[in-house]
Amino acid sequence: MEYFRLNILSAGGYVPGEQPQGGKYVKLNTNENPYPPSPKVIEAIVREAGESLRKYPDPTAAAARQVISSLFGVESRQVICGNGSDELLTMIIRATLEPGDALATADPTYSLYETLAELQGARLEAHPCDADFATPIASLSASKAPLVIIANPNAPTGLSTPPELLREVARSIPGILLVDEAYADFADSNALELARSEPNVLVMRTLSKSYSLAGLRFGFMIGAAGLIEQLMKVKDSYNIDRLTIAGAAAAIADQQWMLANVARVRAERERLSKALGEMGFTVLPSQANFVLARPPQGDAENLYQRLKSEHILVRYFHKPRIDQHLRITIGTAEENDALLTALVKLMSAG
Amino acid sequence: MEYFRLNILSAGGYVPGEQPQGGKYVKLNTNENPYPPSPKVIEAIVREAGESLRKYPDPTAAAARQVISSLFGVESRQVICGNGSDELLTMIIRATLEPGDALATADPTYSLYETLAELQGARLEAHPCDADFATPIASLSASKAPLVIIANPNAPTGLSTPPELLREVARSIPGILLVDEAYADFADSNALELARSEPNVLVMRTLSKSYSLAGLRFGFMIGAAGLIEQLMKVKDSYNIDRLTIAGAAAAIADQQWMLANVARVRAERERLSKALGEMGFTVLPSQANFVLARPPQGDAENLYQRLKSEHILVRYFHKPRIDQHLRITIGTAEENDALLTALVKLMSAG
Repeated sequence: MEYFRLNILSAGGYVPGEQPQGGKYVKLNTNENPYPPSPKVIEAIVREAGESLRKYPDPTAAAARQVISSLFGVESRQVICGNGSDELLTMIIRATLEPGDALATADPTYSLYETLAELQGARLEAHPCDADFATPIASLSASKAPLVIIANPNAPTGLSTPPELLREVARSIPGILLVDEAYADFADSNALELARSEPNVLVMRTLSKSYSLAGLRFGFMIGAAGLIEQLMKVKDSYNIDRLTIAGAAAAIADQQWMLANVARVRAERERLSKALGEMGFTVLPSQANFVLARPPQGDAENLYQRLKSEHILVRYFHKPRIDQHLRITIGTAEENDALLTALVKLMSAG
Repeated sequence: MEYFRLNILSAGGYVPGEQPQGGKYVKLNTNENPYPPSPKVIEAIVREAGESLRKYPDPTAAAARQVISSLFGVESRQVICGNGSDELLTMIIRATLEPGDALATADPTYSLYETLAELQGARLEAHPCDADFATPIASLSASKAPLVIIANPNAPTGLSTPPELLREVARSIPGILLVDEAYADFADSNALELARSEPNVLVMRTLSKSYSLAGLRFGFMIGAAGLIEQLMKVKDSYNIDRLTIAGAAAAIADQQWMLANVARVRAERERLSKALGEMGFTVLPSQANFVLARPPQGDAENLYQRLKSEHILVRYFHKPRIDQHLRITIGTAEENDALLTALVKLMSAG
């Protein structure tokens, strides 16, 4: 097979968490929201599902863009919408990185960044997190890479970075700082103000987590109009379908529904963190809808396997620094109880 | 603005046909199907629009892939699904072309190919069509480009290329031949057999035209499993949302609905072509859901503007060889009559 570019042939591709299609699992492995999306989203989708589907959608998802710009106090031309955050990540990487260029990130962080750099023929410039997993601000600030991506809160640690420190990075680097805020609705602070005030900052959000819409595929970026204008060129003409535009606009308009679910997830996050701590786990102080936790014996991979045989899925990463940890999505109270019960059983069976 | 790659800064981006959001237009400019999608599509979407939206979709759109593989007699691993054909085009270009590499196409053809090559930092190797706009088989067969794309039927001409000639290209070139069959359901022949038998041929289809689902965004490619495997690496993990997977599977399963609409479009295509011919237009023999027609005086741009002021939208291309032509989408009988009536009025007013 010699039809493809070498960096494609050698690429492994991103490996998402397991999505079992059969069987009955307590699924705490892909950071989905355990609560359903707003009924207004369903209504909007059903209303749009008709003859109008024969026509192309609005190229810029104007209806959703307008709700976003009014909610966040920015102009429409400061907003770009994507087919999930994934598409937006691909767009910014294609727009800024020549083959051989560096993409700077913390390490550990969301592994998709490295996969996408590889597909672009770019290289990863990984800046090790501090001993306590804090984002390495000084090191990232010194980066000469055209693109720096910081997840805030970070995945898979769940740790949040204060906006002042992110501003320090933005003002030190020659390139663009993308703050991936997939989990920011679950956090006490976020970097949105930087997207309004700094000329080289983009802040990205998604409906997959806090809005309970992983199945819909909708993400957006906010930043200076000049940045958005260039990204628009890389966007497929009609990248978001009519149903998703309608559903996304309805979801973002219903802040009350999203915030109520976020409050429930945060309450469960505190309860689960405390319970795990009492069982001897080391639990990082999460600001996301998951926790990264090290079992008392550090035997994370074994525990992951044994939980799976109990039909409970959590996420295990075979990677330096986090290979003694489990990443556990916050589920409903019942799901979290099922996890805790299984852990008690497995750990006493030793 | 120096944050972006030079080829992005200099790119114009693709300019899609106008999508007026207000006003009442007879819209014959973006090759949408004038008939509605199958009621089974709507049912499937409404069924999927519920709590399951909180969970990620199946990464490979398995439900749709299965319907496709069984309809076309190929294995599932010979099928890849995209967020519209647009995404699949981006994927194959990213997977095969290094910056500076050539993308070979006929000229004229669908202008998005050139836009996407530009965004990749690749260059267009344009092979002029013959005097009668036929695909330049001998010239394309001699191409050393890693990727050759032939639209069949071609856009904006509507001309079909016999599969034997496409096979000749496939067997002559060192790279991949992608046959973009967005309009093939409206044609007498297609190249699907080549995707089954030739190791370097991909055939692409879309639901935007024949299935009346431009608003849904779903395309697919069929080819050798080894080709599909590499493309899967470039695909976003969850590139197609749950509603679209459900709707697409239902649409492709309802062949009867699609074929009935195609038959109506074909009948109107013959009628409109004949009527335009009688008015002195030179009409290319279209195998698609549009016709490329040259007004008797060649004053296509003027006629386009005057039709627009009559609230009839057709497509005009300011490009060599086709700048004296209009591309007219086949509408309903009533829409086509409105066009013909307006043309009689405008052309007699001269």
